[in-house]
Amino acid sequence: MRLLPVLGLLLAPLAATAAEGMWTFDNFPAARVRQELGVDVTPAWLERVRLATVRIEGGCSGSFVSPDGLILTNHHCVVECLRELSTPDDDISARGFLARRRGDERRCESEQVSVLTRIEDVTARVREAVGDAAGAAANTRRKAALASLEQACTGSYPADDARTCEAVTLYGGGQYFLHHYRRYDDVRLVFAPEYAIGFFGGDPDNFNFPRYSLDVAFLRAWHKGRPARTPQFHRIRAGGAGAGEAVFVPGHPGSTDRLRTQAELDFLRTVAEPRWLLRASELRGRYARFGDESAENLRIVTEPRFYVENGIKARRLGLETLSDRGFIAATADREASLKAAMLADPALAPSAGAFDAVARAVAVQRTIDVPYTYVERGAGFQGELMAWARTLVRAAAERDKPNAERLREYSEARIPGLAQYVLAPAPTYPALEQLRLQFGLEKLQEALGQDDPLVRRLLAADSPRSLAERLVAGTRLADPAVRRELWEGGAAAVAASTDPLIVLAREVDVDARHWRRRYEDEVESVISAASEQLAAARFAVSGTTTYPDATFTLRLAYGTVAGWREGETDVEPFTDIDGLFRRATGSPPFALPPSWLAARDRLPGAARLNFASTADIIGGNSGSGVLDAEGRLVGIIFDGNIHSLGGDYWFDADRNRAVAVHPAALLAALEKVYGARKLRRELTVEP
Amino acid sequence: MRLLPVLGLLLAPLAATAAEGMWTFDNFPAARVRQELGVDVTPAWLERVRLATVRIEGGCSGSFVSPDGLILTNHHCVVECLRELSTPDDDISARGFLARRRGDERRCESEQVSVLTRIEDVTARVREAVGDAAGAAANTRRKAALASLEQACTGSYPADDARTCEAVTLYGGGQYFLHHYRRYDDVRLVFAPEYAIGFFGGDPDNFNFPRYSLDVAFLRAWHKGRPARTPQFHRIRAGGAGAGEAVFVPGHPGSTDRLRTQAELDFLRTVAEPRWLLRASELRGRYARFGDESAENLRIVTEPRFYVENGIKARRLGLETLSDRGFIAATADREASLKAAMLADPALAPSAGAFDAVARAVAVQRTIDVPYTYVERGAGFQGELMAWARTLVRAAAERDKPNAERLREYSEARIPGLAQYVLAPAPTYPALEQLRLQFGLEKLQEALGQDDPLVRRLLAADSPRSLAERLVAGTRLADPAVRRELWEGGAAAVAASTDPLIVLAREVDVDARHWRRRYEDEVESVISAASEQLAAARFAVSGTTTYPDATFTLRLAYGTVAGWREGETDVEPFTDIDGLFRRATGSPPFALPPSWLAARDRLPGAARLNFASTADIIGGNSGSGVLDAEGRLVGIIFDGNIHSLGGDYWFDADRNRAVAVHPAALLAALEKVYGARKLRRELTVEP
Repeated sequence: MRLLPVLGLLLAPLAATAAEGMWTFDNFPAARVRQELGVDVTPAWLERVRLATVRIEGGCSGSFVSPDGLILTNHHCVVECLRELSTPDDDISARGFLARRRGDERRCESEQVSVLTRIEDVTARVREAVGDAAGAAANTRRKAALASLEQACTGSYPADDARTCEAVTLYGGGQYFLHHYRRYDDVRLVFAPEYAIGFFGGDPDNFNFPRYSLDVAFLRAWHKGRPARTPQFHRIRAGGAGAGEAVFVPGHPGSTDRLRTQAELDFLRTVAEPRWLLRASELRGRYARFGDESAENLRIVTEPRFYVENGIKARRLGLETLSDRGFIAATADREASLKAAMLADPALAPSAGAFDAVARAVAVQRTIDVPYTYVERGAGFQGELMAWARTLVRAAAERDKPNAERLREYSEARIPGLAQYVLAPAPTYPALEQLRLQFGLEKLQEALGQDDPLVRRLLAADSPRSLAERLVAGTRLADPAVRRELWEGGAAAVAASTDPLIVLAREVDVDARHWRRRYEDEVESVISAASEQLAAARFAVSGTTTYPDATFTLRLAYGTVAGWREGETDVEPFTDIDGLFRRATGSPPFALPPSWLAARDRLPGAARLNFASTADIIGGNSGSGVLDAEGRLVGIIFDGNIHSLGGDYWFDADRNRAVAVHPAALLAALEKVYGARKLRRELTVEP
Repeated sequence: MRLLPVLGLLLAPLAATAAEGMWTFDNFPAARVRQELGVDVTPAWLERVRLATVRIEGGCSGSFVSPDGLILTNHHCVVECLRELSTPDDDISARGFLARRRGDERRCESEQVSVLTRIEDVTARVREAVGDAAGAAANTRRKAALASLEQACTGSYPADDARTCEAVTLYGGGQYFLHHYRRYDDVRLVFAPEYAIGFFGGDPDNFNFPRYSLDVAFLRAWHKGRPARTPQFHRIRAGGAGAGEAVFVPGHPGSTDRLRTQAELDFLRTVAEPRWLLRASELRGRYARFGDESAENLRIVTEPRFYVENGIKARRLGLETLSDRGFIAATADREASLKAAMLADPALAPSAGAFDAVARAVAVQRTIDVPYTYVERGAGFQGELMAWARTLVRAAAERDKPNAERLREYSEARIPGLAQYVLAPAPTYPALEQLRLQFGLEKLQEALGQDDPLVRRLLAADSPRSLAERLVAGTRLADPAVRRELWEGGAAAVAASTDPLIVLAREVDVDARHWRRRYEDEVESVISAASEQLAAARFAVSGTTTYPDATFTLRLAYGTVAGWREGETDVEPFTDIDGLFRRATGSPPFALPPSWLAARDRLPGAARLNFASTADIIGGNSGSGVLDAEGRLVGIIFDGNIHSLGGDYWFDADRNRAVAVHPAALLAALEKVYGARKLRRELTVEP
């Protein structure tokens, strides 16, 4: 089935096909877009759009839609906030939320949003800092250089200016940038519809189209106790874009693996992805049964269950792509032709060994992947409380070091975000924590084996279950004040703590650092150096017709409003509100909330609800605005079709589709269902 | 890692390597074995071994070890019987069982065992019956011919002689046989150790070696109220076989896929195996949580959880083999060289299109696999009660048809086994039935989608959970007497039944038959015809150096007692009782039962417990005897090492190992732990 489009990739192995690409704003293929779509994307257009686009640090995108910091994003991007604000007696997630006045807006304690204000190329400075060092030494110097640049950049802004800089590596190591952000750590919930309409169709409809979901929410960025001033924002075009019309999607795709070598793809196909999927599926089953045990369990498990099911669906289809004989052959040919081009060019030939270097590093990765994944990456130590414990323990040690010597995620530039994460008064649920911690420990025991020294130590006199019970019952980390004491007390407080989760985290940290070090020195540093060589070769061979793999940094995709052909059937690009009511059955996840049933007669049945376009997106683009040529908002991305799920590894222009909420349905819902007049008036709407 | 041995396969694509092969008794490579091992396997040896080997119809193998029908097999082959005999107040599975007298032996109501008494080649008669029919018509005629042959064969024996005949298809359609069996439907439990030692190490140690488990049990075949007379039985060689010594494993390997075409392997790799694994992993998670809810839940879920975990481990490693780039390339080359050989031979050239025919059939299979798997094959309708309901409904319809027109599994020869299955007074547990039925319905809804007509009908006013609750609460099928009424009442009784599970099964059967028909006519018949052509080509090119894929029919494997080299380490072939005590931690699954702890000082620590050999086995071989050149029992197969799990698809002679219980530990346990003097005396033991 996938063979033909893959052959297309094979014939033009290094060139992007129509609509493909998650382009950086400083390398957008404006000439090509002018040619393909007849639209002139100017630097001014790009700057305006960039400043009206926000990154939601929890893993989403959004758009400013008023000069007062109002942000339009997805319902599924605020589920964690809704969970934090819900209680057993008041389930905001189920009933939805509307702040009638600004004073009623409720803070999402663990959320932050950022606006990319400047892109600064520091490739030359990083190369200079690395000098002629090689291997692990080069990796260490590179990281130190990036941390220093980051800190100096952040320090160049006034302390109260809410600015931060992040070092960004593109092409796996070919280019280095500083991204300057304006960051808002006071983010408040303005509006979210009921879960039943925000995630109508649930997991069954997720990644499917035709689709019928009002997956939207409004947040507001606040600054110094007032709504943020955001002069760059999107007007809303109520009528949306027509079929075939050009559209643009600015947002923050999380990660892709389109530039990986065969050795890396083999590892993903045979090891990493199947392992993740089986583990996640077992956890999904535990969550399902847990939710069946009581109404309260069902409430608290809804959000984590959504995340795991969403991930399974996406990665299952990704694995199908990875396992496709045509894909395997096409990536082998792509690699062979790049290698041949390198060998034919005296300047590039010395780098042709990079493929073998990656293969050797991946061979090491195979031998350390289990402990690295379970101990360092946390698959064996799951749950919110445990994650806090590990962050507290590690942050205490890292913050005592010079910035350039720290682990990346504890660099000075990242400390405020970490502090907010650890100190936010998010609720935890002992029963769920128990389930997750026990599950992780059982998988740890299974993966590392009974004879592993760490397993023997941890489970000497305990089963995973009894250990998890003792830890969850004994820890006081659920109390934000306790976490604050440990955060502010630093290394001394952490060392003195007798909290059982802190004690465990201290012990695990020793092993975890060992595997982290081996991974960085023997895998990451080799692949990073090789990727730099391969990126240089790709630039030399193909110039700027390539785009970097996604890294949760700002990108711009483009395309047209379009359905696709599925077997013998043409799938139309639009759905409407009448279709939603036809699809409703009365049983979750196809049950409409009372507000919609009551508003049935007032709603315009023919108003468009969701639509598909050819823009190249992936997870992290959720909440992205869909813009027309004038930069007006004509949709809010919330999903992709089933074919988009191979998008981690390649782009199938014929069938990969982005799915968005149409502004017609959004406006109708605000007016006819929710009576959200004030919110509606804050938007600038054009016909 | 797997590349080198696969390249070996590639260089000699059609010849078996040393020790490879699950050979039929009428085509055993005696000359090769004489050359490789210096052992003369005579027809008399083969006949004696065949008659002392039993097939345990639940999916295992075993050996007669006394003239009075005493059968030695695995503990894990009797877990279902143990579950059936256990109650909340008397958990026989946990505490083990020993019948001190024959009168105390307890019947395993749903178990049968069979001995292969004759192999009759009917290939010519089947070909004649098919004549020049093609496609679906040929398939229908072939099935009718096999059913008629089967029935005539069974009818040729006296009715009270406990004989039955089964039609057997080898090489996917190249050869047809009648296997004549003596069948015992009165099978009684004689001895089983405690679960804690029978499955010591649990899922973590399963498929791993060094291993320490007493995975043995004794059954007895009874006939007409008396122990069966079994003059052919194995003597036991207490000292076992030495390292490097030749060994033979007669048994019933369940299924392998070593002769599949690339198209079929692609389907397994990208669709069938990942889907099964994800579904099973989710079910595993639900079972785990269910078991955590109460001690009684834990008791009743232990057996189904074992099966699903065992399957996941085996098929996960199988998928790794299927996904290996070297394996993919090797199978492509193997296919290319067979095709080239066919095209070069005028007699075979007309059959070379068989590969494309299989590919086209697999393309159809991809489009119908979801409904075929979920509706016909039952993934959407799980649980014991539902399975009985579907069997009752379908059997009622099929038994009214002439034998030759029935679905294969309802042929006259199979009716007694079906009756025993449906009527056995096996306990069911509403909570577990609820879980399984709900799970199936949820997966049905997910896989077929909300818009599927069957899903819409079944779940019009119900969630999967509420429907499963109503069905389990309302059905009376847990009562064997109710099942007997329906079985004996036939079509009229089934049609008149208002039992909600029978009503559901009636409704589902209509859809299920539709998908079964499409599968048989459009997939199976095409692959069957093509396989026949490919089998003929393999015979022509390679002669009898090939063996058929496993089909749960009697086979003989051979090899030597041997460890293997794992990375930098030599794995020794033997473990001993001292090692078991060193490995015990006190926590399940590494907790020894009290009987073993008490017997510690009496037990010979140096006595061998488990051992590895190179024999080529797979699931279904569990319980097989391991024999020396004289035919004496030197082990009981119960597992394979981790590398054996690729054995579904190919045999890696360097690392694939079968794992068995050593007779020294078995005899020591009977004498020193269980005081089973009478049982011990019934065995014929040599030093």
